[in-house]
Amino acid sequence: MKCKRCRNAAAAVDLPSHHSAFCPDCFFVFFRRQVEEGIRKFSLFDSRDRVLVCVSGGKDSLVLWDILMELGYETEGLYIDLGIDGYSDRSREKVLAFAGAREKEPIVVDLRREGVPIPEAARKSRKEECSVCGTVKRYFFNRVAASRGFPVVATGHNLDDETARLLGNLLHWHREHLERQHPLLPESGEGLVRKVKPLWRVSELETAAYGFLKGIDYVTEECPMSEDATSLVYKEALSLIEEKMPGTRSKFYQGFLRGNGKPHEGGRGKGTGRNEAEGREEPVHCSVCGAPTYAETCAFCRLKEMVGKGAAR
Amino acid sequence: MKCKRCRNAAAAVDLPSHHSAFCPDCFFVFFRRQVEEGIRKFSLFDSRDRVLVCVSGGKDSLVLWDILMELGYETEGLYIDLGIDGYSDRSREKVLAFAGAREKEPIVVDLRREGVPIPEAARKSRKEECSVCGTVKRYFFNRVAASRGFPVVATGHNLDDETARLLGNLLHWHREHLERQHPLLPESGEGLVRKVKPLWRVSELETAAYGFLKGIDYVTEECPMSEDATSLVYKEALSLIEEKMPGTRSKFYQGFLRGNGKPHEGGRGKGTGRNEAEGREEPVHCSVCGAPTYAETCAFCRLKEMVGKGAAR
Repeated sequence: MKCKRCRNAAAAVDLPSHHSAFCPDCFFVFFRRQVEEGIRKFSLFDSRDRVLVCVSGGKDSLVLWDILMELGYETEGLYIDLGIDGYSDRSREKVLAFAGAREKEPIVVDLRREGVPIPEAARKSRKEECSVCGTVKRYFFNRVAASRGFPVVATGHNLDDETARLLGNLLHWHREHLERQHPLLPESGEGLVRKVKPLWRVSELETAAYGFLKGIDYVTEECPMSEDATSLVYKEALSLIEEKMPGTRSKFYQGFLRGNGKPHEGGRGKGTGRNEAEGREEPVHCSVCGAPTYAETCAFCRLKEMVGKGAAR
Repeated sequence: MKCKRCRNAAAAVDLPSHHSAFCPDCFFVFFRRQVEEGIRKFSLFDSRDRVLVCVSGGKDSLVLWDILMELGYETEGLYIDLGIDGYSDRSREKVLAFAGAREKEPIVVDLRREGVPIPEAARKSRKEECSVCGTVKRYFFNRVAASRGFPVVATGHNLDDETARLLGNLLHWHREHLERQHPLLPESGEGLVRKVKPLWRVSELETAAYGFLKGIDYVTEECPMSEDATSLVYKEALSLIEEKMPGTRSKFYQGFLRGNGKPHEGGRGKGTGRNEAEGREEPVHCSVCGAPTYAETCAFCRLKEMVGKGAAR
């Protein structure tokens, strides 16, 4: 099959959801345009913004960093070492190699040094690993961005991630979470920086194809803590529908965004952590670390305290 | 494994979504209660109402008729022969045998005699078979019920059917269809009788188990016209999720019903047929057959006219 764009080279990537197939060069053009359109559509950031890109060592976040550099944005990478034996070491290696080849040095936060490696933090706080990981990551995204003057934090969530989350929220009618699901979450208070998902228009398959064709070396294993994650079940169900009815995912998400209107403007972020709920409208400073919080003590410091107590037992 | 209710007989039906397993007798009790609760919850009908049960010859509608008789309701069956070679003949046989064994005689509408057998009607009107079938069935449900004094028409849609439809409507954000999706659609004008789905709480697996254990003989083949029906894709996707997370379907539908509040009250039925849209609030009489319609001529008569023209070409 010939590339449907240049009608010259052989097609390498088949995209039924776009009724198309591209050779590598034309696929790069397509992918770049999708990401540009994703940024433009909701004004995620512009060329004057320094962007902090959260990289895990997986394909989506490294592809995100790569394409943002290619599009000419000023970026730095933030790697949070989760302290998961083996997996975290292999992930960190991939991030360092990727960055090194581009003459970059990522900012590294080591959760072992911070006293909250995820496996231990989950065990001692008796919380679910993915939930603890979310709390800790959000904390450092904000802290690093605020302390180093980044107005915006970008993550590698793609269309498959966002639609799986949307399906899960709809199946359980979590209306309050739906309100918070958007490619752009504006700054919601001092030290709670803007969060964006520039890859929201591209599918997992498209991201994987981009990574492969660009020769990006990433960690292919899933996080060992998230093996049973329900989001994988929703992804599988949507893949089944997408296969029979190509384009469903994209229509599903775009239809949602149309109905959901503009992103959640300012004010209090709902559903970002049940424990942060004390009814305040504006964040205050955490009594322990000074980070912005809606409670007396921030979720991270409460977690650290639980981990400390667990250790003392 | 022992039955979890009587703790005596061997369990025959495993129901992970209810964290339970029942012997045949206890399963009948369970099933009966689910249907009773489904009727009671939205006051679908009461013991004074004569119920017109639409039976296709498939398991769901025959199980519905069976359980309503068993619960002591006054029922009659309505069989619409779609005029599909082979399939319709086998379906009719099953319906007649089922009814005969219970000393009943179903009301039969033969679409060949009415001039609109589905395959021909679809071909000549250049419409999709399932859409034509829906128009014709709705027409006769109303006509037979109204002319014979039934206040309510019951169909055999189960939880799997309703959640598949709900998922499809959500994936495409058909908000106007969501408004019409409820186990109870009240009478919406003279001759447009109340429609109910008493099996909305029971799954396809539960209905099949009830039919099997009761020895109900039904047509097992799918309608040959609906082989590619998208609803089957949605069902498959939901089955995949249900298998990993039992109870999801039920929570999904009940969560929807809670949010969707009370059933669509009176007035104009939205989404019942695009062609009926002429902005009227109350139905008028079809200029051809006198049936209630929101247009000048009802959808059925317009279909018949198209079929007639097709034949004349």
